[in-house]
Amino acid sequence: MISKNKIKLIRFLGTKKYRDEQGLFVAEGDKIVADLLQAEEWDVRYLFGKREWIRKMSPQEREKAGEIIEVSYEELRKISYMKSPHNVLALVSLPAWQMPDVPPAGELTLALENIQDPGNLGTIIRTANWFGIRHIFCSPGSVDIFNPKVVQASMGAFIHTAVHYTGLGRLIAGAAETGTPVYGTFLEGRSLYTADLKENGLIVFGNESKGISPSLEEMIPEKIFIPPFPDRGKTTNSLNISSSTAIVCAEFRRRRVR
Amino acid sequence: MISKNKIKLIRFLGTKKYRDEQGLFVAEGDKIVADLLQAEEWDVRYLFGKREWIRKMSPQEREKAGEIIEVSYEELRKISYMKSPHNVLALVSLPAWQMPDVPPAGELTLALENIQDPGNLGTIIRTANWFGIRHIFCSPGSVDIFNPKVVQASMGAFIHTAVHYTGLGRLIAGAAETGTPVYGTFLEGRSLYTADLKENGLIVFGNESKGISPSLEEMIPEKIFIPPFPDRGKTTNSLNISSSTAIVCAEFRRRRVR
Repeated sequence: MISKNKIKLIRFLGTKKYRDEQGLFVAEGDKIVADLLQAEEWDVRYLFGKREWIRKMSPQEREKAGEIIEVSYEELRKISYMKSPHNVLALVSLPAWQMPDVPPAGELTLALENIQDPGNLGTIIRTANWFGIRHIFCSPGSVDIFNPKVVQASMGAFIHTAVHYTGLGRLIAGAAETGTPVYGTFLEGRSLYTADLKENGLIVFGNESKGISPSLEEMIPEKIFIPPFPDRGKTTNSLNISSSTAIVCAEFRRRRVR
Repeated sequence: MISKNKIKLIRFLGTKKYRDEQGLFVAEGDKIVADLLQAEEWDVRYLFGKREWIRKMSPQEREKAGEIIEVSYEELRKISYMKSPHNVLALVSLPAWQMPDVPPAGELTLALENIQDPGNLGTIIRTANWFGIRHIFCSPGSVDIFNPKVVQASMGAFIHTAVHYTGLGRLIAGAAETGTPVYGTFLEGRSLYTADLKENGLIVFGNESKGISPSLEEMIPEKIFIPPFPDRGKTTNSLNISSSTAIVCAEFRRRRVR
């Protein structure tokens, strides 16, 4: 049975302001919550689960789950941010991610300028995690990582890939100063497949409709482009930003896994 | 000024049954509608646009737009399926796509088994179009291509890439009979980067959470896998289906563009 206050709390956690005030975010779905219960550095504070889900929890998971509240499916529907809720929803403490001052040398990292769509950000975090990328930097105007839809779309990948919010101009300048290569995707870039891709670097992706802004563009020395097939010169079509990210990250890693 | 009947019509076109009855679908957004007005084989029947948008239309576009109805932004919000509508919404005749009996030999085509998320299907159509893929086959249980959210996420890529609904078992059997290679992504597949990828072929992708069903799996000879980085053996993580599609299509095409 869930109290009215908890229902209100969960609703309000849809906004960033309230998440910051409460230091909590909403994580939903069987896999994401199970992964959070496994991850040492994450602190699950409340768990709202269906009876069978709670019954299957191990003693260690129960210990880690903070307050456990049994809910009916109807109650879960009331608090869920998903169209078809799974069996469990958790409130989790916001992490204290340490943002590095500059992109860590020797690592591949991503920068996203004003990414707006929650599904896109979540999908990109998932891709980044698949390819062993540990840090994503977002410009301050980007959608918040702890927006429930981003958490959902990430399928819990944020557990291993930190997302930081910071001015990208200074970040790129910092990368340049410390000798980290900076890449960005542009229609006028050179083919991804013939470009010189290092093992480390900061890769910048732009906003869904506007791409990378001119002020950042002039700071990015390595301009790359995903060739369409067949080669057809200028086209008004484009790839979704999360598809571009997947293709570019895969190509950086492909060069290393042979 | 938009009539109550038209508002109702547009609302009802959110369901597949009504789209089939009326032979119409909803297409929204400046670029998608502009592209449809350019595309000879597409028939725009009604165009609801803001005054400035309509004013900028060329005589050819006006000719092609069927009935043109000027709407205020408030009216557009009422009829739109988007959170922040653009300047224009159109009702377009459903196309008479000719479904080939078997995947066309010599082409690269995609098959999607029970894809559910409208954003994923739209994004995949966009990717397919970028890579010159002209046919996508979906199992009958998949989300409908003319769901307004799919149309939106595709950014109009369906103008050049046809989406067919058909049983995938028979399709795969047909490909095998006509000598078209059949690929599928599986956790136990061989690395995408060392696999023998032909110029043509049918690539099968599975449902968002369940992957490819066992009955189709046994029909697919070429099992491929996108290697995570660093190589870490079994993992509970995964890529979004639209990210996998992007990476796989890009790799097929990369082998040809060098």
